Amino acid sequence: MKLLQDRIIEDGNVKSGNVLKVDNFLNHQMDIELFNEIGKEFKRIFSECSINKILTIEASGIGIACITAQYFNAPVVFAKKAQSINIDGDVYSTKIESFTHKKTYDVIVSKKFISPEDRVLIIDDFLANGCALAGLIDIVRSAGATVEGIGIVIEKGFQNGGDIIRNMGVRLESLAIVESMDAENGTIEFR
Amino acid sequence: MKLLQDRIIEDGNVKSGNVLKVDNFLNHQMDIELFNEIGKEFKRIFSECSINKILTIEASGIGIACITAQYFNAPVVFAKKAQSINIDGDVYSTKIESFTHKKTYDVIVSKKFISPEDRVLIIDDFLANGCALAGLIDIVRSAGATVEGIGIVIEKGFQNGGDIIRNMGVRLESLAIVESMDAENGTIEFR
Repeated sequence: MKLLQDRIIEDGNVKSGNVLKVDNFLNHQMDIELFNEIGKEFKRIFSECSINKILTIEASGIGIACITAQYFNAPVVFAKKAQSINIDGDVYSTKIESFTHKKTYDVIVSKKFISPEDRVLIIDDFLANGCALAGLIDIVRSAGATVEGIGIVIEKGFQNGGDIIRNMGVRLESLAIVESMDAENGTIEFR
Repeated sequence: MKLLQDRIIEDGNVKSGNVLKVDNFLNHQMDIELFNEIGKEFKRIFSECSINKILTIEASGIGIACITAQYFNAPVVFAKKAQSINIDGDVYSTKIESFTHKKTYDVIVSKKFISPEDRVLIIDDFLANGCALAGLIDIVRSAGATVEGIGIVIEKGFQNGGDIIRNMGVRLESLAIVESMDAENGTIEFR
């Protein structure tokens, strides 16, 4: 997606440790106009799928998932990290290791919100090592529901998450795949 | 907002300990059509304010803030809980006590994303004891920016957050104010 790649080049910031900061438009400040273009693109890509539910994970996936959901006329469910007194005992849970926070989370979705007849589109902002996605796929499959596809805004192509998820037999579409990036001179190459 | 009150009556679930579960349409599964009606209502209420930024706090405020932002043509900034290696050192921070999770968070917003010229609408899903809102107001004021108003989806009118925030001289508008609720017979009364 050219518009997105241009924006990453313009506003993205490459930091050491394979960190790509896009916090001024994607995951801290959020450019809602851009999110609408992203949502339209996901709809175009997955137009032939009969998606009736969108699943994401808190926190930075929620905004993109909600804007995208408008193009599918589907509700959004977001997976929650760790325990909350507001969650019923009846949940699907999985463990996810966060690349960003360097720790392991329990991630849960209430069983009420995923059923065997659901055809789910999973949406997230980033794909790096694939742990978050693998956990969400696990939750959908535990419910007996179908993963119709996965839509990612930015995939770090130089990490192995993309390969892991594609090898699970799931259709994964990333709007921008970063092939390589260089913290020293700030360059970003796309696949 | 009649549509919202009807939905709370229909799908809300009163639990002991002053918990109102609305997780099937507001803060776990999210009804995006309803969110659009909420966004339009916030726009109607704050139509005369020249709002250029929407501020919320992760996680459950993000979806409502993003959908609402479309009616204001404004970007959304969400305050983050605790530390992340992806956040620069240059942040506004405040402490917030969570009613839901019974603990205290550090909440941060990067200084890049709130400036003195910003006219901010704060959006959140729930208002109970007002700690989250007081923290967000503190962040906006630390930046020298203006809080134009606060839009809340559900205010628990029987807790003191509403009074605390209104006494701070901030315009606070809640789309539904729960005056009382009863876990035993499941009834909910609105102000």
